[in-house]
Amino acid sequence: MQTIDRITPEDLPAFARGCGVLGTGGGGSVDSGLPEVAHALSKYGDVLVVPLSGIPDDGLVLPLSGIGAPTVAHEMPMSGEEPVLIAAEVERIFGRPVSAVMASEIGGGNGVSAVAWAARLGVPLVDADGMGRAFPEVQMVSQHVAGLPVNLIVLADVQGNLTTIRPIDGLWSERIARAVTVACGGSALMADYVLTGRQLPGAVVEGTVSAAVRIGRTVADSGEPVKALQELLQAKSLITGKVVDVERHTGGGFVRGSLIVDGTGADRGRMLRVEIQNENLVAFEDGHVRACVPDLITVVDAETADAISTESLRYGQRITVLSWPCDPLWRTPRGLQIAGPRAFGYDLDYTPVEELR
Amino acid sequence: MQTIDRITPEDLPAFARGCGVLGTGGGGSVDSGLPEVAHALSKYGDVLVVPLSGIPDDGLVLPLSGIGAPTVAHEMPMSGEEPVLIAAEVERIFGRPVSAVMASEIGGGNGVSAVAWAARLGVPLVDADGMGRAFPEVQMVSQHVAGLPVNLIVLADVQGNLTTIRPIDGLWSERIARAVTVACGGSALMADYVLTGRQLPGAVVEGTVSAAVRIGRTVADSGEPVKALQELLQAKSLITGKVVDVERHTGGGFVRGSLIVDGTGADRGRMLRVEIQNENLVAFEDGHVRACVPDLITVVDAETADAISTESLRYGQRITVLSWPCDPLWRTPRGLQIAGPRAFGYDLDYTPVEELR
Repeated sequence: MQTIDRITPEDLPAFARGCGVLGTGGGGSVDSGLPEVAHALSKYGDVLVVPLSGIPDDGLVLPLSGIGAPTVAHEMPMSGEEPVLIAAEVERIFGRPVSAVMASEIGGGNGVSAVAWAARLGVPLVDADGMGRAFPEVQMVSQHVAGLPVNLIVLADVQGNLTTIRPIDGLWSERIARAVTVACGGSALMADYVLTGRQLPGAVVEGTVSAAVRIGRTVADSGEPVKALQELLQAKSLITGKVVDVERHTGGGFVRGSLIVDGTGADRGRMLRVEIQNENLVAFEDGHVRACVPDLITVVDAETADAISTESLRYGQRITVLSWPCDPLWRTPRGLQIAGPRAFGYDLDYTPVEELR
Repeated sequence: MQTIDRITPEDLPAFARGCGVLGTGGGGSVDSGLPEVAHALSKYGDVLVVPLSGIPDDGLVLPLSGIGAPTVAHEMPMSGEEPVLIAAEVERIFGRPVSAVMASEIGGGNGVSAVAWAARLGVPLVDADGMGRAFPEVQMVSQHVAGLPVNLIVLADVQGNLTTIRPIDGLWSERIARAVTVACGGSALMADYVLTGRQLPGAVVEGTVSAAVRIGRTVADSGEPVKALQELLQAKSLITGKVVDVERHTGGGFVRGSLIVDGTGADRGRMLRVEIQNENLVAFEDGHVRACVPDLITVVDAETADAISTESLRYGQRITVLSWPCDPLWRTPRGLQIAGPRAFGYDLDYTPVEELR
């Protein structure tokens, strides 16, 4: 697979498109963060993208992501100084400088904005992330699956409030960080599972920055974008049709709801329901599961193959729902315990999407 | 005024009684914390009580208090290790050891338990506190009135979760710390406005540990406890009567409600309503204010003069409601802005209790 070694302003549209596809509906809107990223690149220069081997063994990697309901982040942009506050606190605690930024989740706006955060701090971006997609809760990251201790969470909000949490475990990290986020207005920037170069292999999903750019370029270069995307990802089309119902509410630091798609063309007569907690979690048809977390479920425009985030879903959109296998790390027993359907309250066992009808 | 130089197990009943009186109904139950304090004294020895002049200029003073609804603290005791977690974090941040503990609020269980926290840490207790009474919100402390920056809040919960907040101002400190407290189950131990010996004068209410012991001893030694208490405090009796209604609900990290007292004896035919947010805030009679924050309003048993906390109020109790002037610091414009009636949402100006009918 081809990898990239930097992100320039020219790469941004393809990168953002790829992050949208990997976002499974969540991770924040890729569009609302783009102007800020373009501004950061023009102000601070291109961001170098380095492989895991490019980080010294004791180099400090700062995984960053927005936390909160995407519907809020969409309306309340960050100040841009949040990464500076967080890096200063982490450097004070560890007593050495941050070597690189990593996107905690490559999916959605959180993947796109990681470029701005790295640019602002003047450090490279690691070609990896903590999910290979997007997930709604703090503990749903590869570092947690790999068994790294969740010993530090640092949150900065748009006002400049800084909160550092030393939780006893992953579930408490989510509970406390979410409460702080809600108190701060429903959206904040967060570092969690700060790790060193030595700890990276096996604890992150590799190559996902390059993968996002590749996805974006493939879609942009094709005359049949949805087909090209499907081939690249080895994705199943769950349905092509029209959005006939969107139910969505924001509360407790999440957006939750569901989407109903009425099939058109070859899919006429079929209905698909997708349930949402920031991200698309489970797709049902006639009471049967068609695909579920941690496999990826993304809604794309049926013509352009542009991903449609959960907060951008509207009645009448013509869409295709794609699903494809997650990173193998999420299919381990511990991966499924942390981000399988039961972790989201569903009383159903995980079945890989390729084994479902 | 006589001051004390240590707290021994023999001093505890008088000290607790005095803290209850200064608690204005809040600060947590003095009874539920007492066994833990007695245990700490027997395990770690007497706690030295030092005047402000006993703290070196650069000595670090750790103000501690429980935060949350007293109704919760009453049912979920602390683990006892919370002060150790907090002191370790503060010492790591400041790079030097803690010299002394101070009660953030002398009133109620928070005053009593400060002895256990000092004992557990093996340091003296400063003969002062941040209120001279009890108040429900984080920013309602003398350090804030004195203009010290609220640059650090450290919270530890019974599970062992540790949260450090660097808020931009006092109101954000309350908002974020309260959200963390609720996420941690509704009760936590908190350090805020950590200060040095040099910063103490004018930024704390002096002599309140000694005052609490003095109150407790006066009541214990008298044949007419309510009368003796009233004389010592120069307090007004607002009413003596029977509790005929208590309305109380716990939520958002507070207990809120009201109390209605039906006068008996010389007060027959009169009714007093006291409104509550953890503490007794305002006393109304016939639509007129009889006393209000920041002046102290305490409900005591009409026979024994034992203070009755807001979570212990019950229908049928025979009580006297006392009110007396707060520390002059709270009567300054800034003090009233922080903890006057308008700070609690009341559309009324403060009038000193001694000027009200």
